[in-house]
Amino acid sequence: MKYTIFGESHGPAIGVVLEGVPAGVALDLEAIQAQLDRRAPGKDPTATARKESDLVNIISGFFEGRTTGAPLTMVIRNSDQHSSDYEAIRYTPRPSHGDYAGFIASKGALDYRGGGHFSGRLTAPLVAAGAVARQLLAEKNIWVGAHISAVYGILDDSALQDPEPLKALGDKPFPVLNEEKGEEMRQAILEAKADQDSVGGAIECAVVGLPAGLGAPDFGRNVEGVFSQYLFAVPAVKAVEFGLGAGLAYARGTEANDPFEVREGRVVTRTNYAGGVNGGITNGMPVVFTVTMRPTPSIGLPQESVDLRTGEEVEMEITGRHDPCVVPRAVPVIEAAAALAACEVLKL
Amino acid sequence: MKYTIFGESHGPAIGVVLEGVPAGVALDLEAIQAQLDRRAPGKDPTATARKESDLVNIISGFFEGRTTGAPLTMVIRNSDQHSSDYEAIRYTPRPSHGDYAGFIASKGALDYRGGGHFSGRLTAPLVAAGAVARQLLAEKNIWVGAHISAVYGILDDSALQDPEPLKALGDKPFPVLNEEKGEEMRQAILEAKADQDSVGGAIECAVVGLPAGLGAPDFGRNVEGVFSQYLFAVPAVKAVEFGLGAGLAYARGTEANDPFEVREGRVVTRTNYAGGVNGGITNGMPVVFTVTMRPTPSIGLPQESVDLRTGEEVEMEITGRHDPCVVPRAVPVIEAAAALAACEVLKL
Amino acid sequence: MKYTIFGESHGPAIGVVLEGVPAGVALDLEAIQAQLDRRAPGKDPTATARKESDLVNIISGFFEGRTTGAPLTMVIRNSDQHSSDYEAIRYTPRPSHGDYAGFIASKGALDYRGGGHFSGRLTAPLVAAGAVARQLLAEKNIWVGAHISAVYGILDDSALQDPEPLKALGDKPFPVLNEEKGEEMRQAILEAKADQDSVGGAIECAVVGLPAGLGAPDFGRNVEGVFSQYLFAVPAVKAVEFGLGAGLAYARGTEANDPFEVREGRVVTRTNYAGGVNGGITNGMPVVFTVTMRPTPSIGLPQESVDLRTGEEVEMEITGRHDPCVVPRAVPVIEAAAALAACEVLKL
Amino acid sequence: MKYTIFGESHGPAIGVVLEGVPAGVALDLEAIQAQLDRRAPGKDPTATARKESDLVNIISGFFEGRTTGAPLTMVIRNSDQHSSDYEAIRYTPRPSHGDYAGFIASKGALDYRGGGHFSGRLTAPLVAAGAVARQLLAEKNIWVGAHISAVYGILDDSALQDPEPLKALGDKPFPVLNEEKGEEMRQAILEAKADQDSVGGAIECAVVGLPAGLGAPDFGRNVEGVFSQYLFAVPAVKAVEFGLGAGLAYARGTEANDPFEVREGRVVTRTNYAGGVNGGITNGMPVVFTVTMRPTPSIGLPQESVDLRTGEEVEMEITGRHDPCVVPRAVPVIEAAAALAACEVLKL
Repeated sequence: MKYTIFGESHGPAIGVVLEGVPAGVALDLEAIQAQLDRRAPGKDPTATARKESDLVNIISGFFEGRTTGAPLTMVIRNSDQHSSDYEAIRYTPRPSHGDYAGFIASKGALDYRGGGHFSGRLTAPLVAAGAVARQLLAEKNIWVGAHISAVYGILDDSALQDPEPLKALGDKPFPVLNEEKGEEMRQAILEAKADQDSVGGAIECAVVGLPAGLGAPDFGRNVEGVFSQYLFAVPAVKAVEFGLGAGLAYARGTEANDPFEVREGRVVTRTNYAGGVNGGITNGMPVVFTVTMRPTPSIGLPQESVDLRTGEEVEMEITGRHDPCVVPRAVPVIEAAAALAACEVLKL
Repeated sequence: MKYTIFGESHGPAIGVVLEGVPAGVALDLEAIQAQLDRRAPGKDPTATARKESDLVNIISGFFEGRTTGAPLTMVIRNSDQHSSDYEAIRYTPRPSHGDYAGFIASKGALDYRGGGHFSGRLTAPLVAAGAVARQLLAEKNIWVGAHISAVYGILDDSALQDPEPLKALGDKPFPVLNEEKGEEMRQAILEAKADQDSVGGAIECAVVGLPAGLGAPDFGRNVEGVFSQYLFAVPAVKAVEFGLGAGLAYARGTEANDPFEVREGRVVTRTNYAGGVNGGITNGMPVVFTVTMRPTPSIGLPQESVDLRTGEEVEMEITGRHDPCVVPRAVPVIEAAAALAACEVLKL
Repeated sequence: MKYTIFGESHGPAIGVVLEGVPAGVALDLEAIQAQLDRRAPGKDPTATARKESDLVNIISGFFEGRTTGAPLTMVIRNSDQHSSDYEAIRYTPRPSHGDYAGFIASKGALDYRGGGHFSGRLTAPLVAAGAVARQLLAEKNIWVGAHISAVYGILDDSALQDPEPLKALGDKPFPVLNEEKGEEMRQAILEAKADQDSVGGAIECAVVGLPAGLGAPDFGRNVEGVFSQYLFAVPAVKAVEFGLGAGLAYARGTEANDPFEVREGRVVTRTNYAGGVNGGITNGMPVVFTVTMRPTPSIGLPQESVDLRTGEEVEMEITGRHDPCVVPRAVPVIEAAAALAACEVLKL
Repeated sequence: MKYTIFGESHGPAIGVVLEGVPAGVALDLEAIQAQLDRRAPGKDPTATARKESDLVNIISGFFEGRTTGAPLTMVIRNSDQHSSDYEAIRYTPRPSHGDYAGFIASKGALDYRGGGHFSGRLTAPLVAAGAVARQLLAEKNIWVGAHISAVYGILDDSALQDPEPLKALGDKPFPVLNEEKGEEMRQAILEAKADQDSVGGAIECAVVGLPAGLGAPDFGRNVEGVFSQYLFAVPAVKAVEFGLGAGLAYARGTEANDPFEVREGRVVTRTNYAGGVNGGITNGMPVVFTVTMRPTPSIGLPQESVDLRTGEEVEMEITGRHDPCVVPRAVPVIEAAAALAACEVLKL
């Protein structure tokens, strides 16, 4: 199963084509829409006030309630566009956005309106594709769950050793395990917003139910490499860590090794510091990873840029409405990317 | 250019096939061997006493000093093998090694001797492939350098804002920017060794000279995703971070955004917190990333495992000689992976 | 550049996503539409009376007249649908159509209306994609031309030794080099139509202007393999031959070898029996190949089939309007497939 | 499963790496060697007198009699080399060989000795890879068989409607269904040899036992496209036809359609003019195809070439020993390519 996302923030529509979908699968369309609704803005006071009515429409590969095996295309029409907002940034790239890199890559032919193809809005079709993947995984009793694990240095409890509570977090607009920490995070976001600033954070995600023995140590097939490719394709993701991740640079082998034991007749590891992967292959424990998402680069404060026509340094201000922290709305996005990665690992 | 690594630690030979090598390139064979020598053990008291005379031999795709464009195969013969050391682990997987996952994946047909195809020894052909990639990059004035950025929580200075000093570190067996910190790291490694334990660490690596505009935001083509796939294919890598990486979860937008400025007529960013990539595309700044490597799972202390034949829990001890910390010898390996990734991003 | 065609004959729309399109290319939209118009029915009395107003609409990857490098999506809305025509074939597969194979592959979830995703109608987006490819090739002075080389055993003159006349055939609805032969072919088609039967034929196609040295002998990269993969993806194609093709089984080396000579300072071959490819690599001569297209399997005469519900043999009749010969309308389709293949060979 | 062939005719060794081999498969090494012996020269008076002792050696991915799932590498050492024979052709490309195209592609860095990487000798590792594939297919009761279907216009009986007799032909050095025709073919080859000329021919091959429903109509997944990519990677193949193939250009629908019927409770087609594939998907009938192989371009008669150093036209003579017809020895090669293609179609 391979996905291709198309569209631009201010074009007529965005969408995704899924190739290699197994045939004959009865899709729950409401469940797909429900995933999209999770990422819609306006669910939590920490999010942008921008409205997006993301109604997904399947236009191919689906017939009488089931997948046909032909490419499955899902389309979301765009609306609520204020293209004029963006004229000012056409030749004045916003710092740490894709504007400048994209301008060079496209030889100046970039659709600059609202981030164009670089827009976070393009994660909507990713969520739709992931929703299909989730249904394929559910048939195998595999589920994906995630939570906000950090915002501006405020850390939620870790789900590494026990991801079960993540299963119930899907409906929350601000999913955390520790509500007190969640409240602190919200405050940090609202404070940043009040300062016309933004904050970064992290999401911890678990894929539970993958059998042992999937993947290979080799390039292109190792489980961590496969997952990371899906995860880094999500805008704003700058780090991917499995198990203890970067914390392993602070550990000794005796602290990081996962002893084997037998539980209910199955070989398991007592701890899961490796995040469910050894030697590039699943070991039967939950695959648990953390992604870090950068602070929203769109901030209201004045910033330094360059006019690409004149080559002169200029000061710029970004107008418009933006999420002061992308992390809460990115939770279903990361889950979607993980679900697609899990399908690849399972060769679905 | 695509690489395929083959072989097992205790088989007759290991090697790599490079497909899609540009034709007509005069390869410096001594430079390839020099890269292999960098990762050979015995260079520093912190490394294993095991000897490996990794002489690389090109057996195809190379004629009269130049690449022919046909698949380039490099072979390293194995030697110094003590296969009998490993009989004890055949059905008793070593915690946090690939043994158990590999046993399941191979349906029990695993070559268990010395880690087989999972062995860190397989990074030798990766270094050889990377050495070819480096020569292709050098023609475009692109270079790759790295240093040990952390061992057991002891941190070297960061090269994120200025990677130039990394250029000169290639010949050092224990490459650090801050020699005092390096000495502390060595102590930590030797202490772990004395305790029959091991330690984890991290490597910071920079690819300098990549032009702006390479890559795309899309799955399969975004620069961070491409690099991560190469990096996670290196055994023991558990985290990959670009620029400030996981630190971005502690930052505000004002702290993380990279302002644009004009330097010597070129558009650059004043800082490089993004690690040279915006929107999945290079922005012309050095691509800088950090990988975390887990503590060597092979430790001398007794550990808990399971006998895969009887399903009973057993205590095991790992014998043989092992690096108490894989980080120092992994520096040229990470550089090699980065060089190969850079070639893919450049469509070489 | 990679294309993915989506949609079904009787779904809301069909289309194509082109990934990896070079950025900054000014596309001539009228030229794209003109290619689509070439394959539209109703241009020649030999074609189906069915009307298809294939208006192509670019919905992504294109901004202010130029490609942006983001996935380029072209959509064609469906119309003129008589879905009820097809209820009869739902469980009674039409001989030599994809119905039965598709029914099994889709586990019964096939969109059976009008051939669904198997319909020849899906060649419209292929032509649109090919039209983009042609524009990329034109920038390099490479052009693609084709003619009807055979219908029901009536052969047109061959363009193998001199493809130049193919350049001017693009506007003809029934492109042949020898108009007398063309008239005979038309008669054969009309006779078959009168008999409620159909006829097969062949198309000879040339790609002119490809430089020598593209491709490789290896799997996945050899020029003939690349082209054939694009060509066999066109419905009804059952044979692909390069140069003298199957005729080489009747030849001696002295008859088939192409002597080298120098013409206007360039090394060329006097003849082009190899069709422009030696050892899987272009030799600088036009790449010339012939594809055979089976007789339209939809014929009006009664045929034998099986009721897939009861497992009983049944007689069936196919109603509706069909081309008695797909070859004339397939000429721009084959050219489109060739243009896309040429782009791959050129690594565009 | 993906194969990569490496090596040159006059290098130290040739070989193949098979990635993605299923683990735990007990390989019959003698059966692999037996396939290689089938393609060895000297079995029939029509073949070259050149000796090749192709002993295959597995150096990775195989342990204690079973595949491990790691890349499987098979190596064949070279011998019986007369490199000096080839100095004369270094800058004088042999007509219709890969010499000139390869010289340009390699920027002059071609290993010109004995065809280098373009040599027919490189089909030996392909046969070895195919021998592994055959064993995987045999576990699913799928077999591959082929025969010489044409030499210089002399046609063997067709196996299209009944490929069963092909099953027993594997041991014959000159496999034909009709021995009289075989004798005529031999005569044609020997006459060509006496004339210092060569002849072309064709091979008909069947893959029997593939279930219905494999493949898809789409680019990259359709069965004919997959097979053709493997087949055109065999040197000298210039045409690939499925079922009636190019003969369909002479047929009406009533002659080419395959009526469905029920045989022993299974839906089958009475005839197999489509060669087992409809709409790019297997229909459960044997997949039958024909490949045409060009006359050996190496002929003893004087030929016209160009000196690539001076740009002057020159006359050349090819010395050395060559097969006057590559078809007989190519039979196991085509079977091997078909076996690998079948594995891909089965997603093995």
